[in-house]
Amino acid sequence: MTRVHDLTCRLQKDNGSKIVLLVADGVGGLPLDPGGKTELETANTPNLDALATDGVTGGSIPVLPGITVGSGPGHLGLFGYDPLEYDIGRGVLEALGIDFDLGPDDVAIRGNFCTIDTDGNISDRRAGRIASEIGESLCQKLDAIEIPDVEVFVRPVKEYRLVIVFRGKGLGGRVNDTDPQNTGVPPLEPVGQDDPSRRTAGICSEFLRQAGEILADDAPANLLTMRGIAMLPQIPRFEDVYGLNPAAIAVYPMYRGLARLVHMNVLDAGATLETQMDRLEAAWDDHDFFFVHFKYTDSTGEDGDFDGKVTRIEQLDAAVPRITALGPEVLIVTGDHSTPSKMKSHSWHPVPTLITSNLCRTDAATSYGEAECVTGGLGQFQAQHLMLLALAHAGRLEKYGA
Amino acid sequence: MTRVHDLTCRLQKDNGSKIVLLVADGVGGLPLDPGGKTELETANTPNLDALATDGVTGGSIPVLPGITVGSGPGHLGLFGYDPLEYDIGRGVLEALGIDFDLGPDDVAIRGNFCTIDTDGNISDRRAGRIASEIGESLCQKLDAIEIPDVEVFVRPVKEYRLVIVFRGKGLGGRVNDTDPQNTGVPPLEPVGQDDPSRRTAGICSEFLRQAGEILADDAPANLLTMRGIAMLPQIPRFEDVYGLNPAAIAVYPMYRGLARLVHMNVLDAGATLETQMDRLEAAWDDHDFFFVHFKYTDSTGEDGDFDGKVTRIEQLDAAVPRITALGPEVLIVTGDHSTPSKMKSHSWHPVPTLITSNLCRTDAATSYGEAECVTGGLGQFQAQHLMLLALAHAGRLEKYGA
Repeated sequence: MTRVHDLTCRLQKDNGSKIVLLVADGVGGLPLDPGGKTELETANTPNLDALATDGVTGGSIPVLPGITVGSGPGHLGLFGYDPLEYDIGRGVLEALGIDFDLGPDDVAIRGNFCTIDTDGNISDRRAGRIASEIGESLCQKLDAIEIPDVEVFVRPVKEYRLVIVFRGKGLGGRVNDTDPQNTGVPPLEPVGQDDPSRRTAGICSEFLRQAGEILADDAPANLLTMRGIAMLPQIPRFEDVYGLNPAAIAVYPMYRGLARLVHMNVLDAGATLETQMDRLEAAWDDHDFFFVHFKYTDSTGEDGDFDGKVTRIEQLDAAVPRITALGPEVLIVTGDHSTPSKMKSHSWHPVPTLITSNLCRTDAATSYGEAECVTGGLGQFQAQHLMLLALAHAGRLEKYGA
Repeated sequence: MTRVHDLTCRLQKDNGSKIVLLVADGVGGLPLDPGGKTELETANTPNLDALATDGVTGGSIPVLPGITVGSGPGHLGLFGYDPLEYDIGRGVLEALGIDFDLGPDDVAIRGNFCTIDTDGNISDRRAGRIASEIGESLCQKLDAIEIPDVEVFVRPVKEYRLVIVFRGKGLGGRVNDTDPQNTGVPPLEPVGQDDPSRRTAGICSEFLRQAGEILADDAPANLLTMRGIAMLPQIPRFEDVYGLNPAAIAVYPMYRGLARLVHMNVLDAGATLETQMDRLEAAWDDHDFFFVHFKYTDSTGEDGDFDGKVTRIEQLDAAVPRITALGPEVLIVTGDHSTPSKMKSHSWHPVPTLITSNLCRTDAATSYGEAECVTGGLGQFQAQHLMLLALAHAGRLEKYGA
């Protein structure tokens, strides 16, 4: 257990207060030209600006300065889990991303359909990027594979990508990728690094043998490679470490999966920000912590769509009054990382963050934006400490030591 | 040894410079209304403001963001010791608070006089909150208890609260509380978790047996429970880790005790800030580090007395010229934590901190207050690193590496 959770386990108290963590994925950005405004600074956000004025602001560093994170470690950090301690394997993340309900006995694997030639060498590592419908029908065929003592699940992701899950007792996740990262050579043999993982490796081999027979006539997708073989990390329950009964309200499977990873209650959120707000209102009395996830600030950033990201930020801003009307003791607005549309990718830049509560030591910020947050009262802090600040501002932590 | 002390042990050098650490207990605060001024910002503090102007400012985080500390961990942090590594048990702190000179072989216990009924069950965990004079006379009786091979000390604290110390070789501090935290049940048996602690548990049992006989006719205080059974943590000597000959000038026993914990020389400080300043002047040539503790910024905060805290801050400000007249190479003004009168309690908010020395990289701050310190040149830093900054500004640290 980390020092943070050791403390929260010892100091937590329940005073009935409610906390909302509103995550605008990838919200931080950059100006297109030096000296210009970021997406957040360009957007017209009267509601978020009012929160910044009444609250306290700062910059969240997902892991360490300069380290750009993916969604997995980004969210783990926001949930107060050390992203360097709890490693989420690629196979696990891929399974979470298609809403697969992984259990503690499951080994999850990212698969890539590939093409092998008559000598058994890989000639195309992505099987000509087959259409998603073809991938789906092939997955249906592979889903029929039977292996003694384990359940086998094969699910399509997109195009040549798939997820394989083995469910059974005594499996391990320390098995190498079979993708040789090259063509003209055969796939690698799966090898386990310990006894449970050797068992997994044997199952992988048997699966690949049967898959080869089933797919023999399906060129270009006449085999598959395996990557990111992994099991769920053992993560303390959010409810145990914080004494909060948490609910996750997210539209996208990946974020529901990340919430499930820390054992949040994942609510049906519908498909829009409006249905998310409906759900938040309906569930208000049943939980005391709400993780609300908004995806489109990230996806517009990834697309390099500066104006689109501005529009999405304004859409989010318009939803804020529905949250504040519920009267949470603490409302936090932040992101899991920055996604500057200028970079079309995630970045390491600190994430503009605000906390409102009647116990804030307010700062000079009068708007929610990168430049204001730099001089905010929270300074720059590790995302992993945000939950401590959330609990403190909610009056949910006892004093440490006398 | 922590990384901080590993460094200071390696890099320390003595250049004859002097450092004053002026701790205004609980100095940080909050405005009563959002957007208003804090206690420190309200107070008229020309001397502290001059220091802030000439020096460098920042915010000290006692342990971690969001964590509110008690006086024990708060001061350990200021002295450069990791408060999460060195845990001060409740019994130890209680003994320090009555100026009991604890030694390395002592087990300290917080006692509560209680009432037990004829069945041996606790009917009142605080013995009707007996008057302090009654508690004192009962402690005198218990102080006569004799147990082979250990010295027994029983001292009153206040009302139903007392301190028990066992002094002897081979004792341990890992013994449970005997207070069941409930009435209608008997006290718990003391149980040790290792051999030395089982020895302590046996002594506790014998002490409680004799106490039961002695107090049989003293209802409502006809027994006592034991809590926070603990020994002094093994803490490296301040003088060793920093190469400083330290003096503590504190009016209240608790803070003298905390200074003694890190092996400072505890000087007689009298009862007022004036007598503390007298002592500082008198002892100036004999030491090169002075910890000066001012209590009333905390106690007024705890009382919710905003105006009283402002007055106490102004009182402290008036004493500053007597310190600066001595010409310390480094003068630091900070607190062990914040105590906003709005909250009537300690809080997690960063502590306004200033350092003056002729090696400061000064910042824009022109007054000593929360808002100024937020944008100060020290940024927000862990209290545990303050001693590094003190030594650096005093020219007392060699370069790390070539």
